[in-house]
Amino acid sequence: MSQTAPLAATVADLAEALIACPSVTPATGMVFDCLENQLAPLGFEVTRFIAGEAPDGPVENLFAIRRGPEGSRHFAFAGHLDVVPPGEGWTSAPFLPERRGPEGQELLYGRGAVDMKGSIAAMVAAVTHIPPETGTVSFIITGDEEGPARFGTLALIDLMREKGEIPDLCLVGEPTSVNRLGDMMKVGRRGSVNIWLEVEGVQGHVAYPHLADNPITKLVAMLAELDAIVLDEGTDWFQASNLEVTDVSCGNPATNVIPAKASARISIRFNDLHTGEGLAARVAEIAQRHGGTARPVISGEAFLTQPGAFSAMLAEAIRAETGVEPELSTSGGTSDARFLKDLSPVIEFGLCNATMHKRDEAVAVADLEALARIYEQVTLAALAG
Amino acid sequence: MSQTAPLAATVADLAEALIACPSVTPATGMVFDCLENQLAPLGFEVTRFIAGEAPDGPVENLFAIRRGPEGSRHFAFAGHLDVVPPGEGWTSAPFLPERRGPEGQELLYGRGAVDMKGSIAAMVAAVTHIPPETGTVSFIITGDEEGPARFGTLALIDLMREKGEIPDLCLVGEPTSVNRLGDMMKVGRRGSVNIWLEVEGVQGHVAYPHLADNPITKLVAMLAELDAIVLDEGTDWFQASNLEVTDVSCGNPATNVIPAKASARISIRFNDLHTGEGLAARVAEIAQRHGGTARPVISGEAFLTQPGAFSAMLAEAIRAETGVEPELSTSGGTSDARFLKDLSPVIEFGLCNATMHKRDEAVAVADLEALARIYEQVTLAALAG
Ligand SMILES: [Zn+2]
Ligand SMILES: [Zn+2]
Repeated sequence: MSQTAPLAATVADLAEALIACPSVTPATGMVFDCLENQLAPLGFEVTRFIAGEAPDGPVENLFAIRRGPEGSRHFAFAGHLDVVPPGEGWTSAPFLPERRGPEGQELLYGRGAVDMKGSIAAMVAAVTHIPPETGTVSFIITGDEEGPARFGTLALIDLMREKGEIPDLCLVGEPTSVNRLGDMMKVGRRGSVNIWLEVEGVQGHVAYPHLADNPITKLVAMLAELDAIVLDEGTDWFQASNLEVTDVSCGNPATNVIPAKASARISIRFNDLHTGEGLAARVAEIAQRHGGTARPVISGEAFLTQPGAFSAMLAEAIRAETGVEPELSTSGGTSDARFLKDLSPVIEFGLCNATMHKRDEAVAVADLEALARIYEQVTLAALAG
Repeated sequence: MSQTAPLAATVADLAEALIACPSVTPATGMVFDCLENQLAPLGFEVTRFIAGEAPDGPVENLFAIRRGPEGSRHFAFAGHLDVVPPGEGWTSAPFLPERRGPEGQELLYGRGAVDMKGSIAAMVAAVTHIPPETGTVSFIITGDEEGPARFGTLALIDLMREKGEIPDLCLVGEPTSVNRLGDMMKVGRRGSVNIWLEVEGVQGHVAYPHLADNPITKLVAMLAELDAIVLDEGTDWFQASNLEVTDVSCGNPATNVIPAKASARISIRFNDLHTGEGLAARVAEIAQRHGGTARPVISGEAFLTQPGAFSAMLAEAIRAETGVEPELSTSGGTSDARFLKDLSPVIEFGLCNATMHKRDEAVAVADLEALARIYEQVTLAALAG
């Protein structure tokens, strides 16, 4: 990694190297070798380990740290090297990175270009320009973010706690930009809980309904009550919490039979006015009142990194590089930030997400360069405190 | 068929002969040979024909008529020789009729014992004692009542219309008795319509519900509105019409996806205040209002043979034989009476239905004998006019 090479070439080259290592989730091996080879020459102490077993593993994780002087601040980059399956119909091979387009507007194509090997390349490039004596910088990189995430960032957090390496601030490189690089950062995420609902009745013949007890009648009343709930009107930083019924099922092929059982599944995305457990209890009460049961699986709690010094530093770096004023958002799905928030304040910021998880995923080479400079600026600001 | 043999032996023997011919629906062949061999010696002109193709056919049908003097009244017996599959766990082989039990309380076991080879045997025995000059008697017997009934009684009705053999009254031998022989006759049946409901939405991610349109939300509202309908409070002769949701389905395995489509099926059993078409239109209006569609399949319209002379004749015959006062009911599922009602007034009366469609289906031999005498009395009364 020569610091004399122009930064422009360097970031895209780093990204290409990572994209060229196929790493469909859960990822192990080559792609981690590649990142280690980029970080080690910069003075990073790299720890890699494999966690979990099939089907949700094995998963490789990498923690890299370059310590600053005693007592210096610690800024962490977090992200993932696994990617979603490429699917069909790509113009060029998804794991053979290719740059196409006119001079100055080149796009780099490949699975992971924006989500998020491009961001990780930008992190590496950013660090290239930061003298070690500025402070402690670390990389928290998993091979299991796109999958069940059972053996990924959670295991890395355990490792960091064991080592006593707790960052002051953490930046996750998820592709948060929407239309232009810099137009959105995520200062929190909604929580998510899925709840499986089931109602048992008494099977019978439709001609003798008094001898049966139709579970669908109860299920419909239950779902109508759930659909009518207004969880909240949103907060300063969060949109309103939302409940969706995502499945109903009964599986009764007989037109003249009242079935014995019916079920449904709901998904609630909620803001920090709620907890997963509180919502699960509320739904369970409604389910029980309609003669049913509720089995919740909480995917993550809502969290907010209260906008303040950290978001201001990042916004300043974004404005300086792009002229764009970033929106501070909490929209969208879940990410590993839901785990990292237990370690330190966490904000997510990265490339444009238009092609994420799609065929012909691509990033503007210019965006990679700009993102590296933004990451560099925010790291410097964060280490300065 | 010797009229000097005691009637008791004769009815059970006739029933045994029919039961011994396996005839799982749709039925053809041997069981019809057996009935023809019982009817022909009594002076019946027998017409048999096969209708339909797989999977709902072929179906055999039999029309037998013994004409009385010019201008005499015409009384028809109707029924079916097909049976439902025997299923597992019988004490004796389902198609090897067996009499068991103490003297005077013998039960005859076998598939079809009550539904309705036993009844058909009682019809034949009844006719044995009726002199041909009393009037015209006919048998309208199908091999497809337990199945889709597409090629059975409907085809027989067509044949009778072609021949100009329209009965004055028709008695269907379905097992209508509940606790004791004679406690119930059916003077009508409710209609039945099944309606398939479907709602299309717009698929999307649960985190972005504003970009999606959840079809389950609409389906639930639709079903809640349908469940809330009070169709009527019942009439003098009919219980209240009833709507049941018999299935809901979506088939969405992804917890974070708002599905594109959801569906349900309802079954309405309705009295003569409604028509299948009227109900289908009412449901379709509700479905459309909730953004869905409705596809109705009408199985049969409600009908009532207004209680009067015919039911009084039958009640008198029942009382005389059993001392039981029959309830005039319109409850239960559908039967071929829904078709025969277009030909003449029709009433259903037969054996006790406790074991119908179950394993170890059985009829009391004494009930067979009593039923034959009731059928004989009502035939004589009907032919007398
Ligand atoms: Zn990602
Ligand atoms: Zn029957």
